[in-house]
Amino acid sequence: MALIVQKYGGTSVGSIEKIKGVAERVIEDYRQGNQMVVVLSAMAGQTDGLIQLAEEMTPHPDPRELDVLMSTGEQVSVALFSMAIKSMGHDARSLLGFQAAIHTSHLYGKARIHDIDTARITKELNRQRIIAVAGFQGLNERGDITTLGRGGSDTTAVALAAALNADVCEIFTDVDGVYTTDPNICPRAKKMEFISYEEMLEMASLGAKVLELRSVEFAKKFNVPIHVRSTFTRERGTMVVAETEDMEKVLVSGVAYNKNEARVTIKKVPDQPGIASRIFEPVFESGIVVDMIVQNTSEDGLTDLTFTVPKPDFYKTMKLVSDTAQKVGAEKVLGDQDIAKVSVIGVGMRSHAGVAQKMFGALAKENINIMMISTSEIKVSCVIEEKYTELAVRVLHNVFGLDNEDKEEK
Amino acid sequence: MALIVQKYGGTSVGSIEKIKGVAERVIEDYRQGNQMVVVLSAMAGQTDGLIQLAEEMTPHPDPRELDVLMSTGEQVSVALFSMAIKSMGHDARSLLGFQAAIHTSHLYGKARIHDIDTARITKELNRQRIIAVAGFQGLNERGDITTLGRGGSDTTAVALAAALNADVCEIFTDVDGVYTTDPNICPRAKKMEFISYEEMLEMASLGAKVLELRSVEFAKKFNVPIHVRSTFTRERGTMVVAETEDMEKVLVSGVAYNKNEARVTIKKVPDQPGIASRIFEPVFESGIVVDMIVQNTSEDGLTDLTFTVPKPDFYKTMKLVSDTAQKVGAEKVLGDQDIAKVSVIGVGMRSHAGVAQKMFGALAKENINIMMISTSEIKVSCVIEEKYTELAVRVLHNVFGLDNEDKEEK
Repeated sequence: MALIVQKYGGTSVGSIEKIKGVAERVIEDYRQGNQMVVVLSAMAGQTDGLIQLAEEMTPHPDPRELDVLMSTGEQVSVALFSMAIKSMGHDARSLLGFQAAIHTSHLYGKARIHDIDTARITKELNRQRIIAVAGFQGLNERGDITTLGRGGSDTTAVALAAALNADVCEIFTDVDGVYTTDPNICPRAKKMEFISYEEMLEMASLGAKVLELRSVEFAKKFNVPIHVRSTFTRERGTMVVAETEDMEKVLVSGVAYNKNEARVTIKKVPDQPGIASRIFEPVFESGIVVDMIVQNTSEDGLTDLTFTVPKPDFYKTMKLVSDTAQKVGAEKVLGDQDIAKVSVIGVGMRSHAGVAQKMFGALAKENINIMMISTSEIKVSCVIEEKYTELAVRVLHNVFGLDNEDKEEK
Repeated sequence: MALIVQKYGGTSVGSIEKIKGVAERVIEDYRQGNQMVVVLSAMAGQTDGLIQLAEEMTPHPDPRELDVLMSTGEQVSVALFSMAIKSMGHDARSLLGFQAAIHTSHLYGKARIHDIDTARITKELNRQRIIAVAGFQGLNERGDITTLGRGGSDTTAVALAAALNADVCEIFTDVDGVYTTDPNICPRAKKMEFISYEEMLEMASLGAKVLELRSVEFAKKFNVPIHVRSTFTRERGTMVVAETEDMEKVLVSGVAYNKNEARVTIKKVPDQPGIASRIFEPVFESGIVVDMIVQNTSEDGLTDLTFTVPKPDFYKTMKLVSDTAQKVGAEKVLGDQDIAKVSVIGVGMRSHAGVAQKMFGALAKENINIMMISTSEIKVSCVIEEKYTELAVRVLHNVFGLDNEDKEEK
């Protein structure tokens, strides 16, 4: 007998029929002798409908009241799901954030889970009940409803699994696992059986949309095994777990890419102490997230500074940086939106040298020019021209031995 | 400075624009120095939508989960209302049943309020905030969400007014007060300035739909003055208050009628001990609410038994009673759906004799036959042929001096 926490997203519970399907699946696992705690998101579309209502009321809805409004979405899901389980002859209880005692920080819309008092859930589980917990919501110290922000239901599930010391946290999505790269651009991508938390974090932040970043951080912190799998099949998906020795034997586990960044270069900046701070201050203050930053060695007291920002922030960044550049006497500011970042990721890099070299060589062989490079302990990223993205991903996937040989190249 | 509890029903908050209108009205009262606690129902139509969702899921939704589902309706209203107040530059807080500490009995769908811990509300009021409380919902001892049943938001408002020792509980509706009778059939009906709780209870149970019965019982028990008034005007409505000496000087305060009952008569029942119990047992067990019961004096050991039931239960009752009648050897069972009950109500009856006599005389003068009579301390009811209902109401309204002389007879 295992204690299983499952999470189903908005698409998985997007209609009455789909909720019934989820209920049937949960009952199947329950009948095999498992204790079941099921975290649900709002039905697909409902969250947008609620946001629209709030925006009709006022362009800047009060954050506290917005959370009160938004949390009704998950409330509807868990009530309907529990009705479904009951109508199928099994016992169920829905629990909202306040009933599941999910205590969070104060920050409305982006609260963080502090702790969960599992007394109520454990009591209900001991009565052989299937428990449905509303995802995405909690309660702060004031006794007010909070929501956890985008992908919050993943975090609810992982936090519950940690608090309950569950055997596994299963995240059900519309893909059947984590792949070595995007199968849409590389037909030879393979589903991974295992991936470490660290690799998953790099994959997630680089654009793989399977798991919400914070939930992986949470899982890593409390060593909760996550099973990413499909709502629509019974096949095993991908286990996200702590790093093992076996994993370290593999040089590269996956290839990620990101087309949603733009590049900004400031030419010939006077290389004085505090100059970077002066340039980035207005950018940071506008809430723009700067990703890679590269500064070349200074020549004649002048240096070039290059960095990337999300594409939607490109024009705003250009304006802010151009103002500052003029003030500090830089030569000019260049911008480029037609770029992409490709990255190779793997915990094996820690113990093996030469990954960067092999990557540069493979790209060079295809005449793909590298504009920027950044490295971390388990990742090497290169910025290249956007049009080469798909080619670069396929080449790197092949050169690091990730290709699924059962599948033919398209 | 007064502490005012206001309640707005589903029609009053049926759209974003209407919620804004309510917010403006509340702010007006707040600016005059009053402390404001506002109870809201779900937006018109939302409750039906939620019921429909549940019924799509299963024909017999689990009552606990149905309450979890239904309570989202009021949650949406209070969140949007508080956003509106905030966007208009004032401070507001929404409180759900669990936050307002509205403790109820266990019975899902029909819970009764046991007590309210006002600590949180008082704290928020002391911070000069406008408080929006979700109507219709509470929390039982298990920490589960309950709902109060039809008209539950009225009860929430009155219970809050009692617990907070509010100066008045204002119930906003789409009529501008309580009338001496239905203005639709008697153009000379007058809006009452005052009515006693007891009279209001009789009016409510006889078919006047202004206030929910339980909320009036609650108000009476805790002596909460209720002001029934219109959402759409600023005019004073009707105060529902404890009986005063002045009220006793008036013989009859109002005339009510009810066309929704049917009559069943069992002819020549053997008049033995326990016979009534045998006849009514199957009826009560089917959950049918019997209203008036009349048994004539026995003759030759045989008696006639007549009673009324709601019209939708008529055929079922006829079948149940016919079965029993045959078993106990009664002669036959007669049924009549074309009846109506007209009643005169007034606390003055306690100290004045002759109301019944005057009523019978007035009906006789118009050749209206009385089929059944029942009396209570402050009411006399007669069952008559349905077609005479409007005539009877107008005649009684006139003979007991209730006519508004400013208005002409139609």
